Amino acid sequence: MAEEAAVRAQADTVRRLKQDKADPDEIAKEVAKLLEMKAQLGEDEGKHKFVLKTPKGTRDYGPKQMAIRERAFNAIISCFKRHGAEVIDTPVFELKETLTGKYGEDSKLIYDLKDQGGELLSLRYDLTVPFARYLAMNKITNIKRYHIAKVYRRDNPAMTRGRYREFYQCDFDIAGQFDPMIPDAECLKIVHEILSDLQLGDFLIKVNDRRILNGVFAVCGVPESKFIPACSTVDKLDKVPWEEVRSEMVGEKGLSPEAADRIGEYVQLHGGLELIERLLQDPKLSQNKLAKEGLGDMKLLFEYLTLFGITGKISFDLSLARGLDYYTGVIFEAVLLQQENEHVEEPVSVGSVAGGGRYDGLVGMFDPKGRKVPCVGVSIGIERIFSILEQRLEASGEKLRTTETQVLVATPQKNLLPARLKLISELWDAGIKAEMLYKKDPKLLKQLQYCEDTGIPLAAIVGEQELADGVVKLRDVATREEVRM
Amino acid sequence: MAEEAAVRAQADTVRRLKQDKADPDEIAKEVAKLLEMKAQLGEDEGKHKFVLKTPKGTRDYGPKQMAIRERAFNAIISCFKRHGAEVIDTPVFELKETLTGKYGEDSKLIYDLKDQGGELLSLRYDLTVPFARYLAMNKITNIKRYHIAKVYRRDNPAMTRGRYREFYQCDFDIAGQFDPMIPDAECLKIVHEILSDLQLGDFLIKVNDRRILNGVFAVCGVPESKFIPACSTVDKLDKVPWEEVRSEMVGEKGLSPEAADRIGEYVQLHGGLELIERLLQDPKLSQNKLAKEGLGDMKLLFEYLTLFGITGKISFDLSLARGLDYYTGVIFEAVLLQQENEHVEEPVSVGSVAGGGRYDGLVGMFDPKGRKVPCVGVSIGIERIFSILEQRLEASGEKLRTTETQVLVATPQKNLLPARLKLISELWDAGIKAEMLYKKDPKLLKQLQYCEDTGIPLAAIVGEQELADGVVKLRDVATREEVRM
Repeated sequence: MAEEAAVRAQADTVRRLKQDKADPDEIAKEVAKLLEMKAQLGEDEGKHKFVLKTPKGTRDYGPKQMAIRERAFNAIISCFKRHGAEVIDTPVFELKETLTGKYGEDSKLIYDLKDQGGELLSLRYDLTVPFARYLAMNKITNIKRYHIAKVYRRDNPAMTRGRYREFYQCDFDIAGQFDPMIPDAECLKIVHEILSDLQLGDFLIKVNDRRILNGVFAVCGVPESKFIPACSTVDKLDKVPWEEVRSEMVGEKGLSPEAADRIGEYVQLHGGLELIERLLQDPKLSQNKLAKEGLGDMKLLFEYLTLFGITGKISFDLSLARGLDYYTGVIFEAVLLQQENEHVEEPVSVGSVAGGGRYDGLVGMFDPKGRKVPCVGVSIGIERIFSILEQRLEASGEKLRTTETQVLVATPQKNLLPARLKLISELWDAGIKAEMLYKKDPKLLKQLQYCEDTGIPLAAIVGEQELADGVVKLRDVATREEVRM
Repeated sequence: MAEEAAVRAQADTVRRLKQDKADPDEIAKEVAKLLEMKAQLGEDEGKHKFVLKTPKGTRDYGPKQMAIRERAFNAIISCFKRHGAEVIDTPVFELKETLTGKYGEDSKLIYDLKDQGGELLSLRYDLTVPFARYLAMNKITNIKRYHIAKVYRRDNPAMTRGRYREFYQCDFDIAGQFDPMIPDAECLKIVHEILSDLQLGDFLIKVNDRRILNGVFAVCGVPESKFIPACSTVDKLDKVPWEEVRSEMVGEKGLSPEAADRIGEYVQLHGGLELIERLLQDPKLSQNKLAKEGLGDMKLLFEYLTLFGITGKISFDLSLARGLDYYTGVIFEAVLLQQENEHVEEPVSVGSVAGGGRYDGLVGMFDPKGRKVPCVGVSIGIERIFSILEQRLEASGEKLRTTETQVLVATPQKNLLPARLKLISELWDAGIKAEMLYKKDPKLLKQLQYCEDTGIPLAAIVGEQELADGVVKLRDVATREEVRM
């Protein structure tokens, strides 16, 4: 196997460095790399024929993680349903050509299926392109839907930071020709509701518009062919200072220093309605048709957000650019403002927890006649949210139940299995969540211990006396109170 | 493309048959085939660059199908939770070697991913093997879990009969060393509860035991090497008469006619406790260790099922064999006894709707030291259940809602968008499921029509008068009753 050969090569490297008495830091680095490679190979599992692991960048969800996941999903689904969304599902793979030409450079991260005869298939990379394909294929011009499903990217996973090759997306989109900014405002309201509901701490939703950004580039003297590269450079402003962004613009992207400086004056701005008003009066920007349109809509958006009462957490931020090419209007991204649980040793670096925007051209790429269906949508970054919730739960020491069992059916003496089976069957048929131990004659103590371990609040005890009296003893596991019924 | 060439060839066939004035039935058959092939290719979508379709054997679920799906899932999940199950999830793909050697001949149906550098991966074929891998990898010896997820088989899809290449499985399994037949009985109880709850019509759960079947083969003089082929032949008895099964045994599988006849006497038997008792007295079978063990456990199982009160729908059926190799004890399969909706033109052929059994050796195949974890589980054939529910809904003419919206916020005059936005925001914040039209000035009639189309029961109307009075008019869409509040 190629990976085993790579491990051996790495082991050789380490050996050589040690022989050469190389810099200890360097040795440590290469040893760490070797251990990582070995762990990936699962060699630490012992000597057996095959590697017992999940594929790189993926994980199992155990019962505890699933309980957390369900909590988060419930909050998100409730919100989507509260806003009247329908739900759809699409296959995990699409025809390869459906995904072709939609993701630019990132296309190399798409998982292809092996050609086993028949169609060429790829795993979906996001839920947006399958949604657009679904709309075009079924000639749907008007829908509000959500879709929660796994997507696949052959990225370099950083699993400790909640980044995987297989991960969930929770998407809500509104498709259709509507009056401006009403659906867009609803998407922002949804982000606000979900992040508030999940209690992830303080957050900020940055908003911008591709038309404003393109207008800025135009009035700063950037040729149209360089709008997209300029855009992706601006997008880095949340991670690196302006000076670095500027030098990338001038160096790598070939903008003139003057253009870069002029851009810098704009993209470092952020604010609210007053900033929009100021830019609408800006002598240069107000002359640009695109920018003016974008600013006018942004103003309208802020009016609606004011009516929703959520402008306190919204920032019109000219540095927001978003990676994907297909956005055509409003774009937005929600970030958590501070680390929760600062006492935890390794804080989860979370970054953005939701994002989205308007993409009016994507469906038209699939329609045979190029008919457009305007769309705006939001995607919740659920994996990062899981990481935070998981870490917080661990820090709190709270014991999360992984079942919903209400009562354990128990017996205090031997030879009472028939009584337990009869009673539990009646409970199940009455819709009561009940368990029993799969033993003929379990000790009462073991049965009560099981309740404590798994958080079952009640034990229904049938002993010889109870059977004779035709009653059941109901015991509160925590208080040890008992009633006969 | 190979598939386009096939369509052209088929078109030629049709043309030739017509020229030859062939049998009209034959022509009709070939035309139907051509249309089917064209539909697969999506050629009816018109002339455009690419084919607008989902991959072969897959489908989108629209809002209506999702609503049906949710109903069925809710019934199933409620039952699993009622029995105290935890839930897990595993990646959609596994290392290829994890699946190798688990499915016998069916391995050719596994979807492989393309080798893009790194690990060799395959899409999961079922949820049982990933479950066993999960147990071995995490050294879990004791768990009761359910898992609902899609699995993938490159089978020839018969989509009208609810058979797909991508389809859901709903699995419930109990792993651990327990007293005999208690978990097995619970699995049967679960099948009984779910099928009753879904009201799919009358059903029968056939039960057998691999040990009894192997005992039968042994006492009938079948060499051990032919147990598995004999088993797969017996499995066909629910579809073809004994004579055909017998001739396959003698012809293809090479059993002696005498052995086949002796097998025939056993495998055509079915019944309940009295049959078990009779076979326990059978002079030949009672001498076989395996069969005796299996029959003893079957008797115990029936005792437990009697306590559960469900033996009325259980049949001990010696012809039940189940396809998969990994079963080691009790096996079972639930079938619907009669077609629902017999007036529907094309009745859905449903076959088995649930199945499962005991597989005590599978986890050991993954454990480096071969440690076994006994398991028993059940898989609900949810796709077939969807087909039935879908067809029934269509036949009933019932209008299924695809959203849960409780109230539409509406305005009767122009320029009241701010009032609508303010009110709907308050409703959302109060947890009320509310929608509004994404128009600045929609007509009241249009708004009420939307309620009727989508089944929204209430309209909250704010007009100029209501605004002045500080009230909202709540209108019952069906009765047209109005109250001011």
